[in-house]
Amino acid sequence: MLKEKTAIYPYNEWEIIEDGFKAENNYRNETIFALGNGYIGMRGNFEEGYTGPSGTGLEGTYLNGFYESEVIKYGEIAYGYAEKSQTMLNVTNSKIIKLYVEDEEFHMLTGEVTEYKRVLDLKEGTLKRSLRWRSPKGREVKIEVKRLISFKDKHLAAISYQVTPLNFNGTIRLLSALDGNVTNLTTENDPRVGSGLQGRVLSVEDKIIEDNFGALIQKTKNTNFTLACAMENEIHAKSSYKLENISTEFMVGVIYTVEAKKDEKITLNKYISYITSRDLKEELLFTMAKDIANRGKEEGFEKILKHQREFLDDFWYRTDVEIKGDIALQQGIRFNMFHLLQSAGRDGKTNIAAKGLTGEGYEGHYFWDTEIYILPFFLYNNPGISRRLLEYRYSILDKARERARQMAHKKGALFPWRTINGEECSAYYPAGTAQYHINADIAFAIKRYMEAAEDNDFLINNGAEILFETARLWADLGKFIENKGNKFCINCVTGPDEYTAIVNNNCYTNLMAKENLQYAYDAAKWLKENKIEKYEQLVSQLNLEEEEIEFWKKAADNMYIPYNEELKIYPQDDSFLDKAVWDFENTPKENYPLLMHYHPLVIYRHQVCKQADVVLALFMLGNKFTKEEKQRNYDYYEKITTHDSSLSTCIFSIVASEIGYYKKAYNYFMNTARMDLDDYHGNTKHGIHAANMAGTWMCLVHGFAGMRIYDNTLSFNPYLPESWEEYSFKITYKGRLIGVTVKRHETSYELLEGEALEMVHCGQKIFLEARQIFSNVI
Amino acid sequence: MLKEKTAIYPYNEWEIIEDGFKAENNYRNETIFALGNGYIGMRGNFEEGYTGPSGTGLEGTYLNGFYESEVIKYGEIAYGYAEKSQTMLNVTNSKIIKLYVEDEEFHMLTGEVTEYKRVLDLKEGTLKRSLRWRSPKGREVKIEVKRLISFKDKHLAAISYQVTPLNFNGTIRLLSALDGNVTNLTTENDPRVGSGLQGRVLSVEDKIIEDNFGALIQKTKNTNFTLACAMENEIHAKSSYKLENISTEFMVGVIYTVEAKKDEKITLNKYISYITSRDLKEELLFTMAKDIANRGKEEGFEKILKHQREFLDDFWYRTDVEIKGDIALQQGIRFNMFHLLQSAGRDGKTNIAAKGLTGEGYEGHYFWDTEIYILPFFLYNNPGISRRLLEYRYSILDKARERARQMAHKKGALFPWRTINGEECSAYYPAGTAQYHINADIAFAIKRYMEAAEDNDFLINNGAEILFETARLWADLGKFIENKGNKFCINCVTGPDEYTAIVNNNCYTNLMAKENLQYAYDAAKWLKENKIEKYEQLVSQLNLEEEEIEFWKKAADNMYIPYNEELKIYPQDDSFLDKAVWDFENTPKENYPLLMHYHPLVIYRHQVCKQADVVLALFMLGNKFTKEEKQRNYDYYEKITTHDSSLSTCIFSIVASEIGYYKKAYNYFMNTARMDLDDYHGNTKHGIHAANMAGTWMCLVHGFAGMRIYDNTLSFNPYLPESWEEYSFKITYKGRLIGVTVKRHETSYELLEGEALEMVHCGQKIFLEARQIFSNVI
Repeated sequence: MLKEKTAIYPYNEWEIIEDGFKAENNYRNETIFALGNGYIGMRGNFEEGYTGPSGTGLEGTYLNGFYESEVIKYGEIAYGYAEKSQTMLNVTNSKIIKLYVEDEEFHMLTGEVTEYKRVLDLKEGTLKRSLRWRSPKGREVKIEVKRLISFKDKHLAAISYQVTPLNFNGTIRLLSALDGNVTNLTTENDPRVGSGLQGRVLSVEDKIIEDNFGALIQKTKNTNFTLACAMENEIHAKSSYKLENISTEFMVGVIYTVEAKKDEKITLNKYISYITSRDLKEELLFTMAKDIANRGKEEGFEKILKHQREFLDDFWYRTDVEIKGDIALQQGIRFNMFHLLQSAGRDGKTNIAAKGLTGEGYEGHYFWDTEIYILPFFLYNNPGISRRLLEYRYSILDKARERARQMAHKKGALFPWRTINGEECSAYYPAGTAQYHINADIAFAIKRYMEAAEDNDFLINNGAEILFETARLWADLGKFIENKGNKFCINCVTGPDEYTAIVNNNCYTNLMAKENLQYAYDAAKWLKENKIEKYEQLVSQLNLEEEEIEFWKKAADNMYIPYNEELKIYPQDDSFLDKAVWDFENTPKENYPLLMHYHPLVIYRHQVCKQADVVLALFMLGNKFTKEEKQRNYDYYEKITTHDSSLSTCIFSIVASEIGYYKKAYNYFMNTARMDLDDYHGNTKHGIHAANMAGTWMCLVHGFAGMRIYDNTLSFNPYLPESWEEYSFKITYKGRLIGVTVKRHETSYELLEGEALEMVHCGQKIFLEARQIFSNVI
Repeated sequence: MLKEKTAIYPYNEWEIIEDGFKAENNYRNETIFALGNGYIGMRGNFEEGYTGPSGTGLEGTYLNGFYESEVIKYGEIAYGYAEKSQTMLNVTNSKIIKLYVEDEEFHMLTGEVTEYKRVLDLKEGTLKRSLRWRSPKGREVKIEVKRLISFKDKHLAAISYQVTPLNFNGTIRLLSALDGNVTNLTTENDPRVGSGLQGRVLSVEDKIIEDNFGALIQKTKNTNFTLACAMENEIHAKSSYKLENISTEFMVGVIYTVEAKKDEKITLNKYISYITSRDLKEELLFTMAKDIANRGKEEGFEKILKHQREFLDDFWYRTDVEIKGDIALQQGIRFNMFHLLQSAGRDGKTNIAAKGLTGEGYEGHYFWDTEIYILPFFLYNNPGISRRLLEYRYSILDKARERARQMAHKKGALFPWRTINGEECSAYYPAGTAQYHINADIAFAIKRYMEAAEDNDFLINNGAEILFETARLWADLGKFIENKGNKFCINCVTGPDEYTAIVNNNCYTNLMAKENLQYAYDAAKWLKENKIEKYEQLVSQLNLEEEEIEFWKKAADNMYIPYNEELKIYPQDDSFLDKAVWDFENTPKENYPLLMHYHPLVIYRHQVCKQADVVLALFMLGNKFTKEEKQRNYDYYEKITTHDSSLSTCIFSIVASEIGYYKKAYNYFMNTARMDLDDYHGNTKHGIHAANMAGTWMCLVHGFAGMRIYDNTLSFNPYLPESWEEYSFKITYKGRLIGVTVKRHETSYELLEGEALEMVHCGQKIFLEARQIFSNVI
């Protein structure tokens, strides 16, 4: 089930490089070379468009949280089903710059491309392309393109397009356009790929084109959102040029006609802005879009580029992971971190889609991926972003309360399994709404955040309310069941492993619900002691009773956790061990992932896991289990896990590290670190696997370096994989910036920012003041 | 949850009578007064059409097994989901006879209806209507209509329409038409009511109209079926008349214009035929439809009526149940038996739809209702029909084999939960495909049939193959589970109670699967001994191995049956008792049926039953349980059963009878006996509840009279409900016709046909030769 693949792109520490263009790689490369800033996302499409065979490309531009809704059609509907879809839209295409050399239009697939290089520059935050083209009639040009989406200004993107005639004097035309005739990819049978949205969803409400400036105002039909997209253009050419405007039904454009001379470079800089009614009042959108594009032009491409570089310098300073002795992994992990940065919404109203802003798979929805897989990466590097991600959950708390009522819970909030706007939009509830653990995952993320960021302000203003409402949900959902020794049981839910659904007492869920209840209880006590006025305000606002809070404690203390005395393992749920083990031996390779080849009932009927479930709990609640328990459970579940989910291998790697299965830990890590870069699952074309990318970082920091935070104490238990020379990374923790370097026999910690700190290295308390070196105990 | 209702229709032993017409009752009455012969079904629509408010009527004509298919749309699809819908179509409307008095058109809602009576005549098999109408301009006519659908000729229906001017001489026009512009009722949210079919599905391929004859040839789009509907008309009038033909886009008609005289009756007889490409080659359809209508006309209305009466005389002779002392029940049970007769397909290619041929609820699909609820009624009264119903299952065996492969079963057949053509079309698998017990239900019906009909020919040619293939399915599905003492376990299925889904070891399913496996084993042994050439042929055809047959026995012998030692009851499934009991106290009445007001997860999470599940097994496998066990289980499950399914109360009544809960037995019986006639569920308008109707008969014969067949022996244990004087019924069993009359203290058995028989009365063996009387032991 784990695959071995050779590298697709040449190894390079800071760049992803495409050496030669092949149409069969185009679709995948559009994802690999995608740019984004957490708000705007652009697939790595060519400015000139793409003329290759259908099904080998997807022109895509996305705005985080900008979606259309349609009524979901069910074969047979029932009460409480998700009513409306939410699909992140493919929006106005602003990448367009078309080049005409005399009467010939440049495309990657016409004429002859004699030199070619495309680079995703992780340090600069740009996508660069340089090539030489010989037209069918023999005219040669050199083309250099640089594109970026600004990390500093979330509404801004820019393209610098340079063309130099190499063997002729003649007319060169450049068309810079905005195209509103955009549609989403329609898929009927695979929700992992696209949506069911048919045809053009965005209407064109207004078109503006004047001199170098153009704008489109577009509107969605059902959600009634408005979008403004504007461009400013500037041309630099030694020769004279002429400017014309064009406007068609869905498009506006500026055409520059230059009487070009051999070897004289022509540069077209394009400044693009996007802004929507989800950000700003509708009537201001056009003005603001225009302003942003203008501001970009005034600043100029080079200055924007400088800001981008500065932003990334800081990002890499705080975030970079160095691996000496394995350039492939070095490249993979940096590629992953860069894409994570590109994916994360950071306005408190948006989050991280399963495929970032690089594709349409899973419709741009936010899942538990954020809290459980991605949040640690930001929390220990850029805690500000992790707060914004949690604020997003607070912003949808009211909708979660409504959903709880719909699900017959008298109190509390039930967060949606998948959503953009806060409403549940999973159309298959056994692997959707039934995953109640989302509530505990969010609560757990708050706990993690509070431990590392000590952000009382967040707890007081947002966190406590989420904790109380999620705890209330568990209190209403669970029951003390006589048949189970009067323990607190949680029935008919689905755990993280989607190959078993609607079960009683899913081990992960119960463990995490217990944690949720306990932490909500603790938070209530803390708030009452430390911020009584806020406590009283919340109590009154939520009609919260003292007995409820005490009940949380009681439920947590009495939570039922399934355990099998004979095998001495935690069964995934009450009946998991009553099922036959999947017949792996007689399952042909092409039948994976199983869900694409077997009816859900067939899968649910067997002991077979799509992904870590109990094993995930072993990591997340690591201080609740002994090492022997971890090993026994790991051994049991590893045998029956297919890793059909990209969320699986990183967790197995971390736990393998902890129990000393270093070879396994390394192999699983290899699988996560370059999953998209080497296209292990063959579906990178549909977008990156954001959670897996963050899993890479977790494998290294939580896995190899053994970083944990238990009982408010930071600890490491580092190990250096055999083939590496050393690795180092930084951690932001309680206001400190700590550098960690792991070598074969020793680990050094360096306090780069903040005050001295008591922490633990290999089980021994240490007091970190400056740079200190300790030997590894492995 | 059990409701009390007062009678809607006046009590009458052999008639259902509507005394006065009210638009608000129209929709329901269309169901009550529906006619059918197992092939053609016509709702009780007026010949003139209906002009009442929208939503108070549904013009409907149906042909059993004549359907259209569409691709089922899912919010999120998965492997193995049912692909296409099947919807029994509303076909060519042939009921139309419009009456024009001078320039005024007669409708029930114009002018004034001064006398009115409508009668469903259960002895004659007709729907009769007589009324006096005063037109807005004061013209008075008497109208008498009689309609029948021939039990003798399944393709034939006839209407006799008589009109007499009462206070004028003048022009009377009668238009007899066929209308092909028909659509199905579209419902978005309630599959119990209608389908998702949008707009007109039947195209008009050809129209023929000549003199008194007319025909329409119509075609479905996706299933590519053809339908021919023809009419012959004849008019009897003393005065002269003129005949004209009309033909519009979708309609053909004959207009008779009569110069009518006061008090002179005009009679229009219409002979209607339906035949489809599911019956006959397409090219012959028109000729055959014409022939049948012609033949009807030649025979004449009175002769057809005579045949109808003869058919019903025989039916009632063999089938009638008499209840002395309770006319309401007498009427109810006859109404039910009549509708059952009208519903049953008897060509071996069709079956009994959940709502018969009276409405569009459940899309005309066949369920387990036939085998478990309806088959006994036919088996012990008209075994020929029950054989035809089982032959239908044989006809779809190949499709059931295909479905088994789709569901990853290497061998065997899996019958569809709901279907017309044999393909699964349940769009919600947890309460559809997951109900694997359908396989065992069919096998059980075969066993029942063989016991009572001793039809070795059926077993040899059809039954054995079904038994082998269903047994193979269980053998592949179940597993010997170590954790369960190496017993044979069946995981992830749904039992009859749809308020709990996808469970392990559903008690009913395992018990019935055990029976299926054992009976298949027995049948294999019998066939080998008695019909070796057929046995060998089957073994070769099915690649059946001796070890497989032995494995069936082993699986049956080692079947896991959940049992709770503490409560001494059979839990409905492995985890049923681990769930909290539903909070009935705080559930408002209007929240029933629960499925319309709670998300499935909320329901599945609780101990709450929609219908009998374990209790059904107590009845069906009655000799496997002691009386005390029956009582304990009954007591337990009754408290948590909502009877939201109309399949529930009859079973509770039967078991209540058996354990001596006579008052309960009677109350449940009352609920079933007049469920549609008194519209207990408020949804009779959407069609009859066929299974419940058969349940009535079962309540009486299996319940009060305690009839059982165990170990090849017929036995009775009769009881007379307090308020009755006596009841009697007949049973066809092993070629005998036996009359049974139960009085307060004694029961008489009369051997009406066939040879003497050893049987059991109240636990005592008796030898029935003629008419014998025994005292009741209660």
